[in-house]
Parts: sequence; structure tokens; C-alpha cells
Amino acid sequence: MTAQLHGNAVVAQSGGPTAVINASAGGVIGEALRQGLIEDLYGANNGILGIIQEDFFDLRAESADAVAGLRSTPSAAVGSCRYKLGDLIKDRDKYQRVLEVFRAHNIRYFFYIGGNDSMDTADKVNHLAADIGYELRVMGVPKTIDNDLAATDHCPGYGSVAKYLATAVMEAGRDTEAMYTFDAVTIMEAMGRNTGWIAAATGLARRQERDAPHLIYVPEIPFSVERFLADVREVHRRLGWVFIVVSEGLVDAKGEYITAQTGTLATDAFGHRQLGGVADFLQRLIEQEIGIKARYNKLGTCQRNAIHFASRTDSDEAYRCGQEAVRQAVAGTSGFMITLVRESEQPYRCGTGLAPLALVANGVKYLPRDYVDVAGTQITPAMRQYAGPLVIGELPLRMGADGLPEFMRFQRQPVPRKLSAFVGKSK
Amino acid sequence: MTAQLHGNAVVAQSGGPTAVINASAGGVIGEALRQGLIEDLYGANNGILGIIQEDFFDLRAESADAVAGLRSTPSAAVGSCRYKLGDLIKDRDKYQRVLEVFRAHNIRYFFYIGGNDSMDTADKVNHLAADIGYELRVMGVPKTIDNDLAATDHCPGYGSVAKYLATAVMEAGRDTEAMYTFDAVTIMEAMGRNTGWIAAATGLARRQERDAPHLIYVPEIPFSVERFLADVREVHRRLGWVFIVVSEGLVDAKGEYITAQTGTLATDAFGHRQLGGVADFLQRLIEQEIGIKARYNKLGTCQRNAIHFASRTDSDEAYRCGQEAVRQAVAGTSGFMITLVRESEQPYRCGTGLAPLALVANGVKYLPRDYVDVAGTQITPAMRQYAGPLVIGELPLRMGADGLPEFMRFQRQPVPRKLSAFVGKSK
Repeated sequence: MTAQLHGNAVVAQSGGPTAVINASAGGVIGEALRQGLIEDLYGANNGILGIIQEDFFDLRAESADAVAGLRSTPSAAVGSCRYKLGDLIKDRDKYQRVLEVFRAHNIRYFFYIGGNDSMDTADKVNHLAADIGYELRVMGVPKTIDNDLAATDHCPGYGSVAKYLATAVMEAGRDTEAMYTFDAVTIMEAMGRNTGWIAAATGLARRQERDAPHLIYVPEIPFSVERFLADVREVHRRLGWVFIVVSEGLVDAKGEYITAQTGTLATDAFGHRQLGGVADFLQRLIEQEIGIKARYNKLGTCQRNAIHFASRTDSDEAYRCGQEAVRQAVAGTSGFMITLVRESEQPYRCGTGLAPLALVANGVKYLPRDYVDVAGTQITPAMRQYAGPLVIGELPLRMGADGLPEFMRFQRQPVPRKLSAFVGKSK
Repeated sequence: MTAQLHGNAVVAQSGGPTAVINASAGGVIGEALRQGLIEDLYGANNGILGIIQEDFFDLRAESADAVAGLRSTPSAAVGSCRYKLGDLIKDRDKYQRVLEVFRAHNIRYFFYIGGNDSMDTADKVNHLAADIGYELRVMGVPKTIDNDLAATDHCPGYGSVAKYLATAVMEAGRDTEAMYTFDAVTIMEAMGRNTGWIAAATGLARRQERDAPHLIYVPEIPFSVERFLADVREVHRRLGWVFIVVSEGLVDAKGEYITAQTGTLATDAFGHRQLGGVADFLQRLIEQEIGIKARYNKLGTCQRNAIHFASRTDSDEAYRCGQEAVRQAVAGTSGFMITLVRESEQPYRCGTGLAPLALVANGVKYLPRDYVDVAGTQITPAMRQYAGPLVIGELPLRMGADGLPEFMRFQRQPVPRKLSAFVGKSK
């Protein structure tokens, strides 16, 4: 039995927001407030950046109403960032600073809600704490709409983007179906970086042969302009209209991104290329090569924050991941991410498990080849069985008298600083 | 008292779909089925095109369930088109064909759900029928998300796009707020053609000073690149992040569209320019001129079909417009469009009225200058009072067991043709 560890806790969020990352924060906060071992409870402004800058706010000072409102508020209410720490040699000063800050505030519990880069950071903080003998429990909580984390059946955030985007495809599909004499082709650009999980999930919208989407293109299958044009021509000949979903991260056989703006693509702080531009390129391609009118829709950040049509299943699981992270940490676990474990298909039942942070860090889970058909443009029953249960149920919203949703914001009462400002060696 | 007119009726939809144009069709169909004077009831495939091509389907053969499902199905279930008829001289053969088809099928009631171009077509059909002594009742039912029709307080379709887009701005706004250390600027492109009604409605999302959207740009106010950059810099300095909504149809002081792709803009069948491209142009402009990262979201046709978060008020009014068109026609009215008449502000109450089709045809209602502030980037209390009531209430959806909405489709049992195919003089 691990010794009981008394002390304070910090919760941080990182990376691109989702509709349910706040549900995970709600799970962490709700459970931490119930645990006698956890004394003060802080939120870090702007993820790991806030920790380095000793920029905390007091979560115990927040109202119960604000905490309850987390489940119906999208994006990262605690605050997020894209700020990747390097290895323990290059960025050692920053990891040491994290532990100095933790020590100064007697922080013994660190809950980091994020994707694989965040799990990498958490893993290194955990190792350095052990190396220097500072007793700390570090737990990761999975988060990403991209669904590309290793070791978990799926990721909180994915079910909600899948439900919303599949619905948007159904709706915009009916538009193209009605307007086919004039607007024959619509392209929808889906997020998902280098994986096709999100694009593939829109295949759930297609209950009948004629339903949108007719063609789905994912990054796992090299994109060919010639085959694409042949596919579009074939569907247009057969149905008179074509609805296409493309992943933002489509690549050709050489691994080059499919975009008209390749030269202007920026790179983010994690070294990831900023994607986008594939849908407008393909729209122009269709108009030029096939000579039929095409449109494109790019929902961008709207897709990952659509709490107004989020999946209840996803939100519940996100909450449970946060809750379980606290229970595990209090019981003595450290250095793990909570995973989702599918226990049964019929009926769908999902529990939680643990994966070492190092296993998740920098790993990528791609869409299995047998989740799309031989042509690579439609999903298979295996994908339906996988993704179907994740979109079930609707989330109750808090609606204002003005007909729009109501979201919470934290008051953010600052925790007084105890250290001088950080001056790192590197930027 | 006008003589009772026995005969058949046709309902047609035209132009860009909305979330509630099917509610209007439901109002027409529901009321027509209750009226003893109306015998057969047909839907025209593809709007006026279907009438010219004598391409009808039998609405009496459709199930009660399909008709009831219209209210929870987006886009144009009867079928739409963009096909503008010219004047009675140039396109006389087509108008004559319409009346030949009507006579062949004893169609005495024509209900056309559409925008100003459709009201123009309906008006000319009504005049030609009178000229040749064919007894016909023609009624227009207003439809457009753009809210730019003359003579009506507002247009069915507008309240739903306003509710959905304002919500999407709230959600994506929280994303930028959380990610400001990395993603400081988001631009959302709103539809609306040459008017700013839709973009302005997203101002409803801003309940507090810091809420998105911080800057709104509408086509009614000439756009200046220099002023835009100064606005963005000012908000960024003050808040650290900026959320911008731009109308697709922004123009500069010379009336030229603001877009990077001016040269490649196509023109549609109505002579309208196909807009789009303003958001990506402004995104690049901000990155180049201010040097901060910017994103853009372009919801495209998703915004006009978002039945999953439609306004109940809008849907109810759309239904009532369809219903009232039938009642008026049966009572002897012809050559009018149903209008919405605001009868009271507190509480909001709205009735219906009549406007001559010719008055609506080709008219455009612009956003009044006093609905936006002096700077031209925020809405005023007058705009809130106008648009606020239109987004109230949520529409019950038909949800499938798979967690996605269920939409109806008509069976489309064809009405046997009685004429030979139309060979017009002009295309």
C-alpha cells in the first residue's frame, strides 16, 4: 500500500480544444474536491506555460455553478497552449522550473489533460521528480478530436466531433441533393491532422446508398489526383451530385501534402505543419478538370467546439477519465494516462485502464486499413461498429433566455507567486 | 366574394436552401390537403425547371409521416434550382409553356417558395395568366437566409441561420480565447450576399465586452484594408485575441469585392457573382501585415441547413407563411407574397400580411445604418431588438437510434406527362 500523500494539486489543459475537454476538467475538479488528501486545487493558465510562469488560479474559490457548467462549455476553460518542451537535456531548465514551482506551492498532484505531446511533457516531469526525489503523482487525461492516441480504444473529444460533423454532412448533403442542377459538388474539409479518424466518422451519415458522403479521402491512403477525378466523375454520372469529405492532411504517394498553398504552410511550435487548403484546391481542380461547379465547406475550429450537438457518451467518458485520474493518483499511481477500454460491443460498454505516459507520448494511432473499403473511399462495417457507439446521446445545454447557449467562465482568482520570474536559457 | 376555384395545385421551391424552407412546404401541403377546393397536389422537381419540363410528383401519394417530417428536415425536399426567367418578351415561350403545363394538368393554384428572383417569376406567370384569361392563383412564400427581401419584417430562414451561426461564433470564440498564446485571431465568413444581416446577427453572441465577435464587417459599409488592420491591432492589444466575422460580400469604396480571387470569380445563372474567398484573403493579410497567426472558418452550406440547431420561432413562422399562402389563394388572393408583420416587441408577436409580388421582385432590403455602431464593427441595441426574438426556441429533432438526426425524403411518384417535351427558343 502506497503511503498517503497530502498536498496541493494542479490541473492543466493543453493543445487544441474539444467539446468535452472541460468535462474532463470537471471530472478532475469534482473528484479532487471530494478527496481529503488534496488540499489546495489550482488551475494553470495556458497549460504548461502557466506552470513555468507560476501562473495559477484558485479552483476552490470558483462557484459550484461554474464547476457544474464545465460540462456544457466548449474549449479549454482552464486555458490551453501549444508549447512543446524538448528532452530532459535540452530543456532541463524548464523541467527543473516546473518542479521548483511545484515545490514552492507544495503541489503533489499534477493532472494534465492533453494529447501525445502533453503526455510526453508529463512523462518527463514525472521522471525528473523521481530523479530528484520529489514526491509527485503525475496523471495524464486523454484529449483529442483527432483520436490518434496510442493505447486507448478511443479519445475523449472524438465522439463529439464525429456526431457533429456527420450531422453537418447530412445537412449540407441535402443541400447539394436539392441544388444538383446548379451546385453539383460539395467538398467538406475535416480536421484530423495525419489521421483519417474524423473524416471516416462522417461515413456514419450514410445510411442509404444515395446519402452523403459519397467519397471519403483519408491521409492513410495516398491520394491520387487522377483517381480522385475518376471517382468524382463516376459518382456524378450515377447520381447527378457528389458529396466529398477530405481530411486536411491528405498526402500523395511521395508523402507531400495535397494543397495549393504548399509553399506558404507554416509550422507550429510542435514542429507540426499547419494544414488546410486541400478543399479549395480540390474545388478548383474539379471545376477546371471536370467542368462542373463545386463548393467547399471548412468548419475549422467550429467542429471541435460544437458543444451544442456534442455526444453524451463522449462527454460522460471524458468526465470519467478526469475522475479516474484523481482516484488513481490518490491511490498511489503516477506516470500513467487513463485509457478507455471497450468492454463490450453489444451493448456498448466502456471502462477505464492505464497506459504508461511514455507509451502514449509521440505515438500515433492510424485508421486501420480494414476500416475503409478496397477503393479507400467508403467506411466498412468494422468502422461503423467502432465509431457508431461513440456518437450516441445528446448533451443537455444551458440555454439563456436569449435563445443562445450559456457557457461558464472561471473567475480566475490568482494564486500569489512565491518565486521570481523564470528566465530560461532557451526560448 | 371571389368565385370558388376548383382545381389542382403545385408547390415549388427555389434558390439556396434553408433550415426551414421545408417547414413552409409543410405549411402549404398541410393546408392544401385540408382545403376541399384543391384536388390533386403536385410537387415540382427542381423548382420552375420542373414546371417547364412537366416534371411533377404526387404529394397526395406521400405518407403522413413524410409530410410531418418536413419540419425536421433541412434543405429543399421538393427540389430546388437556380434558374431565372427573363422578361415576358425575351422568355415568353417559357412563360407560355408554364401555363400550357398548368392548363394540361388543370393547375389552378401555384405556390412558389423562394426569394426575390422567384417572386419575379411568380409575378410574371400571374400576369400572363390574367392576360390570356387562364384562371390561376399565384402566391409567393418568402424564403432566404439572407433576410434581404423587401416588404417583410424578416424572412423565414434568417432566424435559424442567426441562431446557429451566433452559437458557432460563441463556441469557436472560446477556442481562440483559450489558445490566444498561439492562435490569436479567428475569422468567420458569413453568407448573406450583398447584405450584412447574417454577419450582424452573430453580434447576438456577444453578451459581455470580451465575448466574440469583437469585430463585424458588413457589405453595407465600404471596407478599408487600413482601417481593418488598425481595428485588429487595437483589439489584439486590448484583449490578446481577436474574433472577426466578415460577410462574404464585402466591398471596398469603389464597390469591388474584397477577395484574393477576384479574377476567378464565376457568375451564376441569375447574374450574381459567386462570392467567397474573403476570409482566407484577410487571414493572409493579418499574418503578413501584423505578423500574428490567424485562422478562418467557412461554414458554407452547413450554415443554411443547420436544422439540428434551428430556431423554433423561425420554423413556426415559416410553417405559418406556407399555410397562409394556401388560405389566401383559396379565398381568392393572387399575385402576392405572404409577409411577416411584427405586431409587438414586448412580448414579441408576429402576424402575416401581403405584399404584391412585383414589390418584392428584385428589391433588396439592406441592413439599416443604425443597426451597426459608428465604427461599423459592432451591432447596436436596435439590431439586438430586431434580431433577438427571431432566434428564440429550439426545434425538436427526429433522432435515429444511431445518434444522428433522421430526415425524410419524398417517394416522388411521378405524375404522368400530358404534353410533349419542351423545346424552347432560348436556352
